[in-house]
Amino acid sequence: MMKINFDHLSYAAILPQVREAMLLFLGEEAGNPLSQHVFGERARCAIEKARLQVANLIGANAEEIIFTSCGSEANNLAIKGIAQAHQKKGKHIISSPIEHLSVLHPLKSLEREGCEISWLSVDEQGLFDPDEVPRLIRRDTILISLTMASNEIGTLEPIAQIGKIAKERDIPFHVDGVAAVGVIPINVGELGVDLLSISANTFYGPLGSGALYVRHGTKIYPLIEGGVQENGLRAGTHNVPGIVGLGVAAQLANEEQMARQALLSKLGEKLRAGLLDKIPEMFITGHPTLRLPGHVSFCVKFVEGEALSIHLNFLGIATTSGSTCSSQALKVSHVLKAIGIDPLWAQGSLVCSLGIDNTMEQVDFFLAHFPPIVEKLRQLSPLFTKYHLKQKPAPSTPT
Amino acid sequence: MMKINFDHLSYAAILPQVREAMLLFLGEEAGNPLSQHVFGERARCAIEKARLQVANLIGANAEEIIFTSCGSEANNLAIKGIAQAHQKKGKHIISSPIEHLSVLHPLKSLEREGCEISWLSVDEQGLFDPDEVPRLIRRDTILISLTMASNEIGTLEPIAQIGKIAKERDIPFHVDGVAAVGVIPINVGELGVDLLSISANTFYGPLGSGALYVRHGTKIYPLIEGGVQENGLRAGTHNVPGIVGLGVAAQLANEEQMARQALLSKLGEKLRAGLLDKIPEMFITGHPTLRLPGHVSFCVKFVEGEALSIHLNFLGIATTSGSTCSSQALKVSHVLKAIGIDPLWAQGSLVCSLGIDNTMEQVDFFLAHFPPIVEKLRQLSPLFTKYHLKQKPAPSTPT
Repeated sequence: MMKINFDHLSYAAILPQVREAMLLFLGEEAGNPLSQHVFGERARCAIEKARLQVANLIGANAEEIIFTSCGSEANNLAIKGIAQAHQKKGKHIISSPIEHLSVLHPLKSLEREGCEISWLSVDEQGLFDPDEVPRLIRRDTILISLTMASNEIGTLEPIAQIGKIAKERDIPFHVDGVAAVGVIPINVGELGVDLLSISANTFYGPLGSGALYVRHGTKIYPLIEGGVQENGLRAGTHNVPGIVGLGVAAQLANEEQMARQALLSKLGEKLRAGLLDKIPEMFITGHPTLRLPGHVSFCVKFVEGEALSIHLNFLGIATTSGSTCSSQALKVSHVLKAIGIDPLWAQGSLVCSLGIDNTMEQVDFFLAHFPPIVEKLRQLSPLFTKYHLKQKPAPSTPT
Repeated sequence: MMKINFDHLSYAAILPQVREAMLLFLGEEAGNPLSQHVFGERARCAIEKARLQVANLIGANAEEIIFTSCGSEANNLAIKGIAQAHQKKGKHIISSPIEHLSVLHPLKSLEREGCEISWLSVDEQGLFDPDEVPRLIRRDTILISLTMASNEIGTLEPIAQIGKIAKERDIPFHVDGVAAVGVIPINVGELGVDLLSISANTFYGPLGSGALYVRHGTKIYPLIEGGVQENGLRAGTHNVPGIVGLGVAAQLANEEQMARQALLSKLGEKLRAGLLDKIPEMFITGHPTLRLPGHVSFCVKFVEGEALSIHLNFLGIATTSGSTCSSQALKVSHVLKAIGIDPLWAQGSLVCSLGIDNTMEQVDFFLAHFPPIVEKLRQLSPLFTKYHLKQKPAPSTPT
């Protein structure tokens, strides 16, 4: 069966060059970079090369890159590590309600242990208001942790403006860049970011490989303790092939950034325009223009996003639904709830995250097959039968 | 240059079958196991197969296996996760001074946060005394964390006896099995272990892949939070190739256990006997018989272990020194210190950890070239010149 991946934020096929580089370190070149003998030398050189490649992607110095096993680990390390290192200064953290669960769950844990979290508000398009940040900052604020772009709605946040405020007030600023790093140009200096979470698979690198950028001089404690690896900030024998793959993927993302971004924007714009044209009673979630290229998230009324995703899967098209349907209740995404989407709409949410392996033909295929699926599911929906003649205008809908 | 790996505990070349299985998931088969669509199905099946393969290696149920990024993460998860989940019951932990740093450092962190650690004593051969355990247990003891075998001295500990005590007193029992699982037969039921740390590379699986066995019903909190993966105990997109490689390696270790153990015992015994025969003023550290097969650790007087290791490296032989020589001071291994080795001896420590890719010829080569290195280095040592005519008998020397 034909397979079309419109769910790159869940998984992107790794690039051939990444794979080739990794293969060397699954074979003869392999070794433990920490070993002081022949078996470690090649591995040591390889991971230091990768460190520089990742640093170059974000305008950092190599020694500011800490390798982790994934973006979620990077988020956990940043949040728990800063909280632990600064607990004498205070226990107040600023974050937002549209963060990834690997940010929200550590914050909830810290809350249980006595931390206080202030939540930055978001508007209907998912944007933070930088002017609100100074009003939330307190004497005991030890961390600001915000996403660069939510993977559910794709809105690109005003990070540089918030970074400036954080710098002025001397508060460590962590940014979850998992959905954005390697997709859009990022420079940690210009953004004023002190910690930045990175995931290799976002830019066609391997699963099980990520990094945390930690600005020189930032005080942070390790999450996985017990080794001298990564300046003592992350114990455990290095995943050499994974790190090598991350490095090559970072270099390619850096070199090809312009071309990739142009392609993704073109594909995304075609998909977005086609959907708005063909599907009645739907709207795009997130910001119309300030968004990740190739990210098209939307809500369709009177259907369940999960049902849409399943029917698309029958056709070999991978997408993801923002809402998770449990057996007992329809649970609406925390991100869509935070930007004020009516639950009736939110349960019909779908996210298409396009990648550089997608084509215009695939978008055409999607646009040809998606409208009949929506139509068919709507016919089955009692809500549709009940409401379709007296539809209210959609609340909070930036159509 | 010829390369001989006598440092398998640092790095072991992965098996061809492991590599082959991983390659599939670096290519077309790849996907995110969490995805509900076509791109996730194969990956989901593959990691569940691996879970069963790992479970079979240690006599566990598949659902009791939590995949991690390494053995160090497994140790950190076990210790911090149990401490957090049981903090209302108490803050007392029992461990030993010969643990790996990925056990000791988390314990030190917990100590700073108000936990109390009682340290089980070890004898000169590195053995715990199970009879001491009941004397250390208190009403508020929430965890016993001990190694199955220290990678520095190789002594196999009386885990089953301690497991029986832990079970009787209903205290969670974590065992660091990183150096032992996949090398010797292990059954978590027979051992009475509740949590067991595992590293894939110990049995010729990939770097960056490990697991924690968590007995059904054991209350534990996650270290990396924010996802539904691994029953909520470990967030982050699965490292599919790494997990698949771990599974295949576990299955092979299970099938070939007897043959591998016989080979390693033979190689180790030859090396041990040859060293005792050819090197004056040396002794084997750890227990003479109750030890990891193929693990030969020893101390040579009047030389530095690091110098020995460097000279062996010139010949292409990888080993590791128990002592770490910093520029300022000779720092003696905490394990050798704990078993009472005199610092004069301890700084001359060397560990040879053999693997299934070693041969009798390689042991012969080592035995031919090692004695002249010792002799040469001793001639350069002022300590040797000073002491060699009035040597005191070695303290704590189970020759």
